[in-house]
Amino acid sequence: MPKILVTRHLGQQAMTVLENSGFELIVNPEDAAPSREWVLTNLSDPEVQAVCLMHSQPSDKVDEQLLNAANDNLRCVSTFSVGYDHINVKAANARGVKVGHTPGVLDDAVADVTVMLVLMTLRRVGESIELVRSGKWPQLPWAPFVNCGHSIGHPSLTIGFLGFGRISQAVVDRLLVFTNKTQRPRIIYNSSRRRDNQDEIDADFSKRYGVEVRRVEKDQLAAESDVLIVLCDLNPSTKDLVDKTFFGKMKQSAILVNVARGPIVNSDDLHDALTTGQIWGAGLDVLTGEPDIRADHPLLRVKNCVVIPHLGSADYDTRNKMAELCARNAIAAVNGDELLAEVKL
Amino acid sequence: MPKILVTRHLGQQAMTVLENSGFELIVNPEDAAPSREWVLTNLSDPEVQAVCLMHSQPSDKVDEQLLNAANDNLRCVSTFSVGYDHINVKAANARGVKVGHTPGVLDDAVADVTVMLVLMTLRRVGESIELVRSGKWPQLPWAPFVNCGHSIGHPSLTIGFLGFGRISQAVVDRLLVFTNKTQRPRIIYNSSRRRDNQDEIDADFSKRYGVEVRRVEKDQLAAESDVLIVLCDLNPSTKDLVDKTFFGKMKQSAILVNVARGPIVNSDDLHDALTTGQIWGAGLDVLTGEPDIRADHPLLRVKNCVVIPHLGSADYDTRNKMAELCARNAIAAVNGDELLAEVKL
Repeated sequence: MPKILVTRHLGQQAMTVLENSGFELIVNPEDAAPSREWVLTNLSDPEVQAVCLMHSQPSDKVDEQLLNAANDNLRCVSTFSVGYDHINVKAANARGVKVGHTPGVLDDAVADVTVMLVLMTLRRVGESIELVRSGKWPQLPWAPFVNCGHSIGHPSLTIGFLGFGRISQAVVDRLLVFTNKTQRPRIIYNSSRRRDNQDEIDADFSKRYGVEVRRVEKDQLAAESDVLIVLCDLNPSTKDLVDKTFFGKMKQSAILVNVARGPIVNSDDLHDALTTGQIWGAGLDVLTGEPDIRADHPLLRVKNCVVIPHLGSADYDTRNKMAELCARNAIAAVNGDELLAEVKL
Repeated sequence: MPKILVTRHLGQQAMTVLENSGFELIVNPEDAAPSREWVLTNLSDPEVQAVCLMHSQPSDKVDEQLLNAANDNLRCVSTFSVGYDHINVKAANARGVKVGHTPGVLDDAVADVTVMLVLMTLRRVGESIELVRSGKWPQLPWAPFVNCGHSIGHPSLTIGFLGFGRISQAVVDRLLVFTNKTQRPRIIYNSSRRRDNQDEIDADFSKRYGVEVRRVEKDQLAAESDVLIVLCDLNPSTKDLVDKTFFGKMKQSAILVNVARGPIVNSDDLHDALTTGQIWGAGLDVLTGEPDIRADHPLLRVKNCVVIPHLGSADYDTRNKMAELCARNAIAAVNGDELLAEVKL
């Protein structure tokens, strides 16, 4: 009887799907990350043909060690995440192990958080919450421009995206309703490479959104964006992509929102850019080194920076959909079917 | 030469409008609220025909005392706000003094903050910011449903409004792009009274938004809303309107967002509703007693409540528009013209 290893209880909805698959389940009984040893030992069970695992659990890192520990019948590593930077996909595939992930189902949830962070950062809400909490509201001088932020409805705003996949497009759908009705915004983006039919692609986007949409090179993206949203993959070419040089080209009135992966933005350089007024503010759902972010982290001491703990996909509906897709990828693999969503390099 | 009294510098854009009016200006020279005495003394100047004043400055309260101190030539009290609960409009009008305010120009800014607070409250962002700031991110157990909130894209969501004027309608414009694409949301609202042609009005709204929109009585609004947004005027009939009884009818999964005036929601009852799990969360841009809210205010110690310091209209573009409208109302009055926006009871 094939078995599916589950490193963390996936919620009732997805567990029911797994139970109904007819396969035997080995489920981490704790409501906590298992030990690395627990994962490796169970993976060596020759009947384990698929494993459902987590992005942010050190025990679940799919590296050479884990793949060497796994039995030869393992067909699938199914991660409960869209990102797969914790998985050595090439090494897995070389052993005939498919990698499943959960794209698509979290686009809306991440887009919601992105728009929220754009508004929070433009309006300096992190700073304001702290002001209220620390009892300084009574001392807040009232005046016409005290505590003011920038408006998302500012005329002719330029909204920039680093990465222009499904989530970025879902963000555009949402952001446009907030923007100026007469002097419309402009969307610029940078994607990994210019396509041969780039002009045609951009014309299609422009038509779909009713505003100018255009791919630009990184320097232009940095220089012209009023709101810069990071939504690209993390890979060697995007690590530290937003660094000192990049910030040096940005507008002083611009904001940065990172909802992708921490290391795409260099934390030290961001700190300098915020404290020297090189940019106006930042909103971060992700941060290099997370979750190991201590209270004395320099970016937590910067007023014009708001940090939330990787909440992008954190709503019940979305997590249930991710869990179910994670389960169905594993089941499909054991059945010898195509995965519903496979990482293909 | 008629004079216009200005109790607080209105920013360069509006001050230029005032300077170009040809009238003499008496401007509070301090970047702070003037004394009450300064306001009263200057108002007694027989050439002062209009005063531009502030909502949240105790010196500027337009009561019998202020009206008695004013000279007989005063034609207009022009407030830099849409709300006029600091002005005794009836008493002013009885003396032939018109009251100007700044509606319309802040609708978009307040609607932006409303949507932001809805998202923040559904996703428990206030609590998460505090978790990060206090250094607890490293201890946050990672699990599929830890730190999860509710989704604005939940199927068949019911969005309720207390008050359904221009700002509420601007909120609907924005919120609908976030909602479920197949199982569409429903909008219900309560307004002060049922109109004779209410069904027709609601049919028009439903057509405009492409979802069901319907006026309901308060009990139904409380019972059926998943997201309840307070956007009505503060007046004797709405003070404490959202109280223990109201909360008692709400869903345990519902959230409350108040972006109108603090006293519409009873703070003690809200505190009880949040701490006993009668409702799921609250997002407040306004709070009874503001700005005198100390760090030990009970609502600041409740995890599922996020409070921001009355930022609704606080963006530079909007404040400049409000200042200009405030200036133009005063100038119009001195010229003997209709105000651009007059409070009419």
